[in-house]
Amino acid sequence: MNQDDLLRLLEEVKNGRLETDEALQMLKDFTVKDLGFARLDTHRELRTGYPEVIFGQGKTPEQVKEIIRYMNTRDHNILATRVTEEMVRAVKEVCPQAVYHPQARAITVQKTHMKSPDTCIAVIAAGTSDMPVAEEAAVTAEIFGNKVERIIDVGVAGIHRLYDKIEDIRKARVNIVVAGMEGALPSIVGGLVDKPVIAVPTSVGYGANFGGLSALLGMLTSCASGVCVVNIDNGFGAGFLASMMNKM
Amino acid sequence: MNQDDLLRLLEEVKNGRLETDEALQMLKDFTVKDLGFARLDTHRELRTGYPEVIFGQGKTPEQVKEIIRYMNTRDHNILATRVTEEMVRAVKEVCPQAVYHPQARAITVQKTHMKSPDTCIAVIAAGTSDMPVAEEAAVTAEIFGNKVERIIDVGVAGIHRLYDKIEDIRKARVNIVVAGMEGALPSIVGGLVDKPVIAVPTSVGYGANFGGLSALLGMLTSCASGVCVVNIDNGFGAGFLASMMNKM
Amino acid sequence: MNQDDLLRLLEEVKNGRLETDEALQMLKDFTVKDLGFARLDTHRELRTGYPEVIFGQGKTPEQVKEIIRYMNTRDHNILATRVTEEMVRAVKEVCPQAVYHPQARAITVQKTHMKSPDTCIAVIAAGTSDMPVAEEAAVTAEIFGNKVERIIDVGVAGIHRLYDKIEDIRKARVNIVVAGMEGALPSIVGGLVDKPVIAVPTSVGYGANFGGLSALLGMLTSCASGVCVVNIDNGFGAGFLASMMNKM
Amino acid sequence: MNQDDLLRLLEEVKNGRLETDEALQMLKDFTVKDLGFARLDTHRELRTGYPEVIFGQGKTPEQVKEIIRYMNTRDHNILATRVTEEMVRAVKEVCPQAVYHPQARAITVQKTHMKSPDTCIAVIAAGTSDMPVAEEAAVTAEIFGNKVERIIDVGVAGIHRLYDKIEDIRKARVNIVVAGMEGALPSIVGGLVDKPVIAVPTSVGYGANFGGLSALLGMLTSCASGVCVVNIDNGFGAGFLASMMNKM
Amino acid sequence: MNQDDLLRLLEEVKNGRLETDEALQMLKDFTVKDLGFARLDTHRELRTGYPEVIFGQGKTPEQVKEIIRYMNTRDHNILATRVTEEMVRAVKEVCPQAVYHPQARAITVQKTHMKSPDTCIAVIAAGTSDMPVAEEAAVTAEIFGNKVERIIDVGVAGIHRLYDKIEDIRKARVNIVVAGMEGALPSIVGGLVDKPVIAVPTSVGYGANFGGLSALLGMLTSCASGVCVVNIDNGFGAGFLASMMNKM
Amino acid sequence: MNQDDLLRLLEEVKNGRLETDEALQMLKDFTVKDLGFARLDTHRELRTGYPEVIFGQGKTPEQVKEIIRYMNTRDHNILATRVTEEMVRAVKEVCPQAVYHPQARAITVQKTHMKSPDTCIAVIAAGTSDMPVAEEAAVTAEIFGNKVERIIDVGVAGIHRLYDKIEDIRKARVNIVVAGMEGALPSIVGGLVDKPVIAVPTSVGYGANFGGLSALLGMLTSCASGVCVVNIDNGFGAGFLASMMNKM
Amino acid sequence: MNQDDLLRLLEEVKNGRLETDEALQMLKDFTVKDLGFARLDTHRELRTGYPEVIFGQGKTPEQVKEIIRYMNTRDHNILATRVTEEMVRAVKEVCPQAVYHPQARAITVQKTHMKSPDTCIAVIAAGTSDMPVAEEAAVTAEIFGNKVERIIDVGVAGIHRLYDKIEDIRKARVNIVVAGMEGALPSIVGGLVDKPVIAVPTSVGYGANFGGLSALLGMLTSCASGVCVVNIDNGFGAGFLASMMNKM
Amino acid sequence: MNQDDLLRLLEEVKNGRLETDEALQMLKDFTVKDLGFARLDTHRELRTGYPEVIFGQGKTPEQVKEIIRYMNTRDHNILATRVTEEMVRAVKEVCPQAVYHPQARAITVQKTHMKSPDTCIAVIAAGTSDMPVAEEAAVTAEIFGNKVERIIDVGVAGIHRLYDKIEDIRKARVNIVVAGMEGALPSIVGGLVDKPVIAVPTSVGYGANFGGLSALLGMLTSCASGVCVVNIDNGFGAGFLASMMNKM
Repeated sequence: MNQDDLLRLLEEVKNGRLETDEALQMLKDFTVKDLGFARLDTHRELRTGYPEVIFGQGKTPEQVKEIIRYMNTRDHNILATRVTEEMVRAVKEVCPQAVYHPQARAITVQKTHMKSPDTCIAVIAAGTSDMPVAEEAAVTAEIFGNKVERIIDVGVAGIHRLYDKIEDIRKARVNIVVAGMEGALPSIVGGLVDKPVIAVPTSVGYGANFGGLSALLGMLTSCASGVCVVNIDNGFGAGFLASMMNKM
Repeated sequence: MNQDDLLRLLEEVKNGRLETDEALQMLKDFTVKDLGFARLDTHRELRTGYPEVIFGQGKTPEQVKEIIRYMNTRDHNILATRVTEEMVRAVKEVCPQAVYHPQARAITVQKTHMKSPDTCIAVIAAGTSDMPVAEEAAVTAEIFGNKVERIIDVGVAGIHRLYDKIEDIRKARVNIVVAGMEGALPSIVGGLVDKPVIAVPTSVGYGANFGGLSALLGMLTSCASGVCVVNIDNGFGAGFLASMMNKM
Repeated sequence: MNQDDLLRLLEEVKNGRLETDEALQMLKDFTVKDLGFARLDTHRELRTGYPEVIFGQGKTPEQVKEIIRYMNTRDHNILATRVTEEMVRAVKEVCPQAVYHPQARAITVQKTHMKSPDTCIAVIAAGTSDMPVAEEAAVTAEIFGNKVERIIDVGVAGIHRLYDKIEDIRKARVNIVVAGMEGALPSIVGGLVDKPVIAVPTSVGYGANFGGLSALLGMLTSCASGVCVVNIDNGFGAGFLASMMNKM
Repeated sequence: MNQDDLLRLLEEVKNGRLETDEALQMLKDFTVKDLGFARLDTHRELRTGYPEVIFGQGKTPEQVKEIIRYMNTRDHNILATRVTEEMVRAVKEVCPQAVYHPQARAITVQKTHMKSPDTCIAVIAAGTSDMPVAEEAAVTAEIFGNKVERIIDVGVAGIHRLYDKIEDIRKARVNIVVAGMEGALPSIVGGLVDKPVIAVPTSVGYGANFGGLSALLGMLTSCASGVCVVNIDNGFGAGFLASMMNKM
Repeated sequence: MNQDDLLRLLEEVKNGRLETDEALQMLKDFTVKDLGFARLDTHRELRTGYPEVIFGQGKTPEQVKEIIRYMNTRDHNILATRVTEEMVRAVKEVCPQAVYHPQARAITVQKTHMKSPDTCIAVIAAGTSDMPVAEEAAVTAEIFGNKVERIIDVGVAGIHRLYDKIEDIRKARVNIVVAGMEGALPSIVGGLVDKPVIAVPTSVGYGANFGGLSALLGMLTSCASGVCVVNIDNGFGAGFLASMMNKM
Repeated sequence: MNQDDLLRLLEEVKNGRLETDEALQMLKDFTVKDLGFARLDTHRELRTGYPEVIFGQGKTPEQVKEIIRYMNTRDHNILATRVTEEMVRAVKEVCPQAVYHPQARAITVQKTHMKSPDTCIAVIAAGTSDMPVAEEAAVTAEIFGNKVERIIDVGVAGIHRLYDKIEDIRKARVNIVVAGMEGALPSIVGGLVDKPVIAVPTSVGYGANFGGLSALLGMLTSCASGVCVVNIDNGFGAGFLASMMNKM
Repeated sequence: MNQDDLLRLLEEVKNGRLETDEALQMLKDFTVKDLGFARLDTHRELRTGYPEVIFGQGKTPEQVKEIIRYMNTRDHNILATRVTEEMVRAVKEVCPQAVYHPQARAITVQKTHMKSPDTCIAVIAAGTSDMPVAEEAAVTAEIFGNKVERIIDVGVAGIHRLYDKIEDIRKARVNIVVAGMEGALPSIVGGLVDKPVIAVPTSVGYGANFGGLSALLGMLTSCASGVCVVNIDNGFGAGFLASMMNKM
Repeated sequence: MNQDDLLRLLEEVKNGRLETDEALQMLKDFTVKDLGFARLDTHRELRTGYPEVIFGQGKTPEQVKEIIRYMNTRDHNILATRVTEEMVRAVKEVCPQAVYHPQARAITVQKTHMKSPDTCIAVIAAGTSDMPVAEEAAVTAEIFGNKVERIIDVGVAGIHRLYDKIEDIRKARVNIVVAGMEGALPSIVGGLVDKPVIAVPTSVGYGANFGGLSALLGMLTSCASGVCVVNIDNGFGAGFLASMMNKM
């Protein structure tokens, strides 16, 4: 309800075309339901193909199944992250077309194709054990309608492997860099490209890694400009943000 | 030196227009100076108006002065962050046109105007004590050629102040959100807009704030999608990244 | 033994109705058993319906069963928190009327109805995965004789969901706000109401959540006034304190 | 602006006593200023004597002076916390009736007397070095219109000093317990009274105190029921919350 | 080999009753085995009944069994801590007289009775879940030949339970105080007695307990004099040290 | 007031030599002042020469001076720790016989000589920079009436220096071992002697020392039996506890 | 490709013996594959017998098997660390000559013997529970062609056991010292020898060990010169570095 | 005293040329003074030119001056680290030839030239603010008689600067790599060279750097083999260890 709507309402009251108690009800709704932030959500839901997302961790297979059963009655794509194999079996019962991505531990249901930007997102992983997080990022970016270039096992200890891929990295509009242990890769990539780098620390490692703390602190204190950080192991968050940037 | 340059060089050697030892020197330079990553740097320097940046903290006033004296012989804009008043006095001796931004603790020298995007960057600060970091971000974004909308003192404890500004926030292409203490503001903003949110935790606070740790952890674990985080108090990093996004 | 009792005792000594050695024994007991703090406990036990509480975690099913068997011989209501399904089976053998609250992981035995205040306690949970802690708080408040209003899944990332419930929240005399991850919800609620907010951080989350640390620090450094914090996942403590306040 | 006001406005529009553009302006204000959450603030301001609060830390003396000069034009009481002596001198220039509480590091300006509850708040401090935080709590509770009973230097290592004061503690409706080092006092008080205990850890101490961490963790994990915790050194927060409870 | 032994050896060499090469061998042993620090060890072994100790955690049942089989060929008492039930079964095969203390998770083999001091050691546990650590301390002190007085479930939240036991506590020559969560009990006991208090933090708890950190920091920063601390859950260390003190 | 006093009081009431209301007042005092725990304190004060202690840190010079002026009117020895030179000057005004121990940062006033045990306490410091803490321990032990043997600069990196002193160490009845950095010295000493070792971590060091954390954790996890730990830099606590043990 | 190769290439182009597009391809390869850092890798691979290494943790048995099947087609020795028994069975299927080292949790395949230095590496472990990490270091050093002297169970609490072995330790060219808990052993060894000490903290322990943190901090703050540290439990890293030093 | 000496002593006793009590004294000395570890120290002192080292931090200027005055009477080189300018002035009074290295905050006195290895040590610093630590390492290595190659400002964010210096780095026998913030440089260097890398984290930085913690954890978890770590800011330790390796 914008200013013009409001003026029109008042004039209808003035002209007696609208009763005061009807107008009162409309104004009360407006204070609750039509605040700007609610509009946004409606907007999201209305854009066909915009995915709905479930965070599986901490839910029961039954809960995930029921949520997807409901979502499946609508036209949006669906993304479920942090799912277990048990959840996948439950979901398949009500949504046989669901696709399971085992490495990403994700389920997608593609019901419509979003308009895709021409540019691509590079998902760069330091080591093979960072793959689950990197795949979560990649699958997220794809279901949101982006092209993804995967670049794997280019850790800093053998940095020539990174240079082999430099052209692919340079072509991307946004870079997601996934690394555990010392988490140095985003600094290197950030120094080589002129595009935003979304750094994802992983909990991969042992000892002084302290559950991802070493990579997290390393990325936050990166000397390279253009680097930002999401939560440890948060592949989804990186994929979502990269999609947002890629469509700007 | 791209592939065409390389082919041309080889053909000049073939045709005898270039001596092998001259070509050798050019190729040796190429292996050192013209690796992809070096090209980027050169590129940066050549784009007129692209600022050069100094991190003042840990340098002496004399060092800052000498660096700016040298930079001032060239055509680029200059940005010095984390400067003290003593540094400002030293710099003014060699560069009287330097502008000091006391709240941002920054010096800028505007020697040329970069082409500015039409869109703007919102710099949103939770409290007045977050201002120095917010201003560092704003001044950085401006010297990099962006329009900036400052929105101050809209902390979550009196959230209606944020809603007063919702239209301004919605207009921005990128949002920088600066907050100390519980660092909840980026989550709120991230839930209200459909644009990237760069969250900057500040060390403002006391007690369980632990030098910015509470805000940092809060922002990293934000439930809102589209939020990324930079280092505690890193206004420059946020301004640089926002500029990069705004020009995408 | 209050001042009057003491005076009477002394007068009985004076009058020879009480031997000095008998009086001595009574006074010695008094220094040990009848200090104010012991009175309080007796007081608690005597108030009919006041629940007795068992913390199940770290106990064996057999121990929980035996404690409840003993408690069941008395007239008080009973609350056991942090119970496992195995404990529930053991308790049912000796106390078939015990009610199991699976989400709250609690057992209650209602043997009498406490006088209930007219006002209610709102238990507000940010996400569905915060439900176990929220339910522990709600079940605790109820067995202590309070009306509870449950408000679920109103996290800050979609803050309009919170506003839909604002009238219910405003009606409550005390608010318990349960949240994991960035723990920002208590700050928002604290800014919207004029009543105490008991914030309960949960260990729900991953990565930089560090077992509830992010939510804990966020709540402790909340910018909103009127917010206090209990231990991570301590639904019982919040429910108990809210009951205490609701009866003030 | 409540529902009746709104209805009256609409009827005045209907009756032609109010022009639509005037009504539009009032409604626009309403969407901004009178959202549920804003109403609270207005309410606060309207209740005569309800104090306005400034957090001095991180502000300049000049800023504090200017804020108080403005506040002084209105009828509310004023509370400034975490002020320096330099701030006090600055404030006295514009507000000579300002009262400085050196131990609490606070300024109050009493312009009206709030209606005071008959019950009192006990502010209990473990040691003399916890006094500044305890006084901040006490001065806050007083300017908000509460009676305060100060009980000082009753630390757990000489617990008989606490018992000397047990009657005073029992009389209070709410207890604020301030302690540094091991922070055990709130557990003891919580076990002795049947009223809420607001625990305030202080940064007083050295070594394994780690800036108040030992007291904070001790209070959060307190075995006594009815204890809640605010931020380290947050005397103001405790005083505000206690006042809120005392007026329930 | 003490000074007298050494003198005797030299005189036997002088008198020709001992060959120089035999003496050489004995002296070489002496330089290795009888350095001051080694003497202690020998001394320990020679005192009849002085127990030998095995730390079971991290060993296989087979290893524990073999060590005890060997120890059992000698005359000393035996103590094995942190044993599993599987270890107990293995040990019983080679040492049927071994006694298993399930709560203490310890095995003892009493082969001789050490001379016992008349004084006793009090082992005081805050809660029932602190029992395993308390029992480890008690069993250790007993196998080292001390009388032990167990005082259980006297946590600070119901401090009158502690006062009921004050006479028993006062009688002890050394106090071991075992507590988890806020770890406040040693401060209280330390303020009530004039004897050393050995504080043992336990990992019992959840949330801000952080694996015993809250109790550890609380005990280290205790305001009571005469309190010292051992590692989290280190019942053995406390029992050993208390025995050492009790025999001083 | 002991049992005999109590009996006497009752008999005086019986015999009419004491009015019941006078007796009531005395008994009321008794419930407050003569609870078991209070007796201890009185006992301490009555033993001639038992020192009174002030913790200077966080107090003003004026406060320290006034406390000592009052203490000086009585017959006890006095110990003030963590004093500044400014405090010393203030104290000298009212108590010229006060002795300042600059390295220990302590003041003592010796008014009477306590009966001294024949045995001694060894205070062993790893490095010269651990001296202030070691001296605080030594001065404390001395003013409490103990003989002290100081053994300095025997850190583990040149362990032969320790062995030179082994006889002195072996002679002591209690060992206080003060060390910063890796805090390994108590483990070594604990392996060499058969007496209790009180380990005092110091904040001496830099980097991964983290304010004494490295030494603290090292000492808590010591593999040597018979080692206990006090707070970082807590020389007083170690000296007090050692005195308590030395007099057992 | 060194400078001479480059010159020769250019002259062949000049002389027409090499087509420009062939030369172009060779130069493009050169910019990617023959950068200094790549040369190193090739060098490693070419030196016969230089082992290839797999980090088993986080890989599936199938993945480990496939990697070793491939490696086994070449002439290098093979080392796989952090393997499970299930991995061993899988590897044996494709590489029956693989040797499993259960304590080191490692697999080696010796296909050729590297030239061994005459000097040896000492691997010194404080306790028996540090054996797995110590063995990982020893097996690594051996497969890289070094002689290894194992010295076990020489912890600081019984330091005479270390002195028994001092001659063996002195003979080694490099020392690896493995210890958990307080991690003091490297300081002692560092003070006794004139050779580098590589300290390996282990996660062995409980309580304030915090997963190896106590040993890690202790080793980093070691007062002995000549000590460096690798990650917690990183036996491989220590063995590799020791081998590098032993061959210098 | 070796085996031959011992045999000779015994034979002199046998032959009556040495009294038993004289022999006894010699043997007692032997157990204390002539343990292997003491010999080492003597050995160090005897090697001409081997420097003596003072750690200035925490000492007074007077103490540093007196220690150097004494050292100056002997023939060894002298190194004092962590000195202040005030210490330098004090030292110059007694040792005018002392050389002050302001950036390294060190004093050296070169009294003799140690035999220098032909190989050199590279000291590589990521940024200009890491210079003080790097210089401490370099000056240490030089006074110990090593050639040092300084390579400055080659941080990972502009990694081509590192490649410009790759030949110099490759020539060194040992590399010291000094870096703050994310501490990624040692990983990169470790991947490029086949020589040991001694990583020195610095406390340079702000925010999530947490006093050097980010760099420390990053270096400990480095994926490159051949990297070891010393304490934060410990330039001396790195220089000493590098010297030890360079002379192997």
